[in-house]
Amino acid sequence: MHIYLDNAATTALDPKVVDAMLPFMQHHYGNPSSIHALGRETRAAIERARKQIAGIFHVSPGEIFFTSGGTEANNMAIQCSVRDLGVTHIISSSIEHHAVTHTVEALAKSGQIQLSWVHLLPDGSVDYAHLEQLLAEKKGKTLVSLMHANNEIGVLLDIQRVSNLCIQYEAYFHCDTVQTIAHYPLDLSQVKVHFISCAAHKFHGPKGVGFIYISSDAQIKPLIHGGAQERNMRAGTENLYGIIGLAKALELAYAELDTTSTYIRSLRTHMANRLEKEIPGILFNCPADGLYTVLNVNFPPSEKNDMLLFNLDIAGIAASGGSACSSGSNVGSHVIAVLNRPEQSAAVRFSFSKFNTMEEIDTVVDKVKEIVLG
Amino acid sequence: MHIYLDNAATTALDPKVVDAMLPFMQHHYGNPSSIHALGRETRAAIERARKQIAGIFHVSPGEIFFTSGGTEANNMAIQCSVRDLGVTHIISSSIEHHAVTHTVEALAKSGQIQLSWVHLLPDGSVDYAHLEQLLAEKKGKTLVSLMHANNEIGVLLDIQRVSNLCIQYEAYFHCDTVQTIAHYPLDLSQVKVHFISCAAHKFHGPKGVGFIYISSDAQIKPLIHGGAQERNMRAGTENLYGIIGLAKALELAYAELDTTSTYIRSLRTHMANRLEKEIPGILFNCPADGLYTVLNVNFPPSEKNDMLLFNLDIAGIAASGGSACSSGSNVGSHVIAVLNRPEQSAAVRFSFSKFNTMEEIDTVVDKVKEIVLG
Repeated sequence: MHIYLDNAATTALDPKVVDAMLPFMQHHYGNPSSIHALGRETRAAIERARKQIAGIFHVSPGEIFFTSGGTEANNMAIQCSVRDLGVTHIISSSIEHHAVTHTVEALAKSGQIQLSWVHLLPDGSVDYAHLEQLLAEKKGKTLVSLMHANNEIGVLLDIQRVSNLCIQYEAYFHCDTVQTIAHYPLDLSQVKVHFISCAAHKFHGPKGVGFIYISSDAQIKPLIHGGAQERNMRAGTENLYGIIGLAKALELAYAELDTTSTYIRSLRTHMANRLEKEIPGILFNCPADGLYTVLNVNFPPSEKNDMLLFNLDIAGIAASGGSACSSGSNVGSHVIAVLNRPEQSAAVRFSFSKFNTMEEIDTVVDKVKEIVLG
Repeated sequence: MHIYLDNAATTALDPKVVDAMLPFMQHHYGNPSSIHALGRETRAAIERARKQIAGIFHVSPGEIFFTSGGTEANNMAIQCSVRDLGVTHIISSSIEHHAVTHTVEALAKSGQIQLSWVHLLPDGSVDYAHLEQLLAEKKGKTLVSLMHANNEIGVLLDIQRVSNLCIQYEAYFHCDTVQTIAHYPLDLSQVKVHFISCAAHKFHGPKGVGFIYISSDAQIKPLIHGGAQERNMRAGTENLYGIIGLAKALELAYAELDTTSTYIRSLRTHMANRLEKEIPGILFNCPADGLYTVLNVNFPPSEKNDMLLFNLDIAGIAASGGSACSSGSNVGSHVIAVLNRPEQSAAVRFSFSKFNTMEEIDTVVDKVKEIVLG
């Protein structure tokens, strides 16, 4: 068995989530749009899930729309804002997930928007002064798309600050929250965001399902047309088991949030401390107070670095270079590139979950030492 | 327990499909884009599924792209053809699924295409002479989008004939095959179609997953941008269990095709014969040689018709009015409307699967008689 430290890429399904999904895979299979009893019971289950999720984020159930995942949610927020809300200018950052960068680039390439990249500080965090400057230029109706936590280097956005700026300059605000949902509390009645996105598989829920929150004052139309599902906002027969699993995983995550986050922080701190003490020249590509599920380690220049991820894998350790959604290679990450690390140094992202143990962390540090120092 | 005769809306998961999915829900959870062993094993499973599916339809694995279902696949074929292939004219029919009609209507409304509705014959089948006339008018690069079998009334398209016309007039051909995949053989090396769509939940596979076949000579770009999944054609972490379940369900369906289709035809014929003999004034809204999984029954005008579906449900019979994806009501179906049935008659769609029994059919006919004659 591998030691799995790639939880920012995806997580294992929680057995309790599987248990919640199974009755809908084995017994309750009606189409939620059917009006007979078998349809009504699955419809009711989906609406219970929606209501429960809305409660967690302090929004109306009518503002939660299930999607096939975070990527679809991000595409929907961005593509439909341009098509339906008169957005002609998007401000984003070069280290967003490709679900955002590739979407805004496609819109810019086809001439539908002007695209502004906000400057980043040396640690990869947003230069808020530059963000305000871009907003003040008023190049037309603007959408700001910035992620809550970077999936590779864990820098966190001051979501309240960006929200305030967007209110002040009358811009729409899309926040890619895929890495922070279920890991941080988020009260959308306190902070104004127009769109957030969620992927269940980042917190022990199923792959292939997520949601988009669409604020009731951002009236977009569907990206995917068809049946009347999701109150005419997202057509297609619902991923029933996925939605049930998503809601269960969120419920568990927020019920356990204090315990889990404290525990994961202790794993991360222990690993960082040992690496720093025991491997000369180690740097961290993530802020100490960044996303607590991610420790991105920069190994000093060495000929061994080309084989580092490969050797970790051989040693039974699952970690990643950039994000899994990129090439998985430890070179060429568009995120690490902004940090200006020395050439031939190697970035490895270790990412944690509640299922990791302190013993695993110690084993990993020991094996990493063997590989890079041995 | 209800007797489930709403299999055109959705089907129960085959227990063998659940068994195929479970190991990927319980053990093999790596992100298929991760380069470590846990990622490589799920990547390999997905590519095996793709190869197996491609084999069934005699296409290249590189032409099969997994989606969140049939609706997304239909949207992708249509929206991306307009955006990327220079399509400025779409020919479709008014009784397509809403995943098609609503998509082409949105494109027409926004001025991106000219939309032509092909005439229909009295039974709802396509008027091929009119289709040829529309193609011959050459209003610009044209996409023909016609479904293989109608989901409500089961009329079948002569796919070879439409394909020949599209070749002759250099049009693209999208065929919504959601109701026929796994129920009819389809050899795409023999009949030229540019796009077909599939939803796994129509043949005892999981909800929330499907695929689009994109012929290699129809080079569209993604509808959903982001990571490099699906060879840069459909971003987002793959619905791993869904894909495994889809492939297993297809494998089972085609292995059992002769037996299953013969069996289901016998259920349908028996039900049609009894209804015709025992209820005066019964008509069928589907051709006798139409889609064998669907029997759409037209009950003669009666005051009882308003409550018919409700009373069937009370009697423990799950059937539907129009399609589940519409309102589920027995009035207002855009499909039944074209048949010009007498006012106050009622259409009820009974749809079958391999899990139905002859005893169930007899029970249903008996109860239907009680409700309409009693």
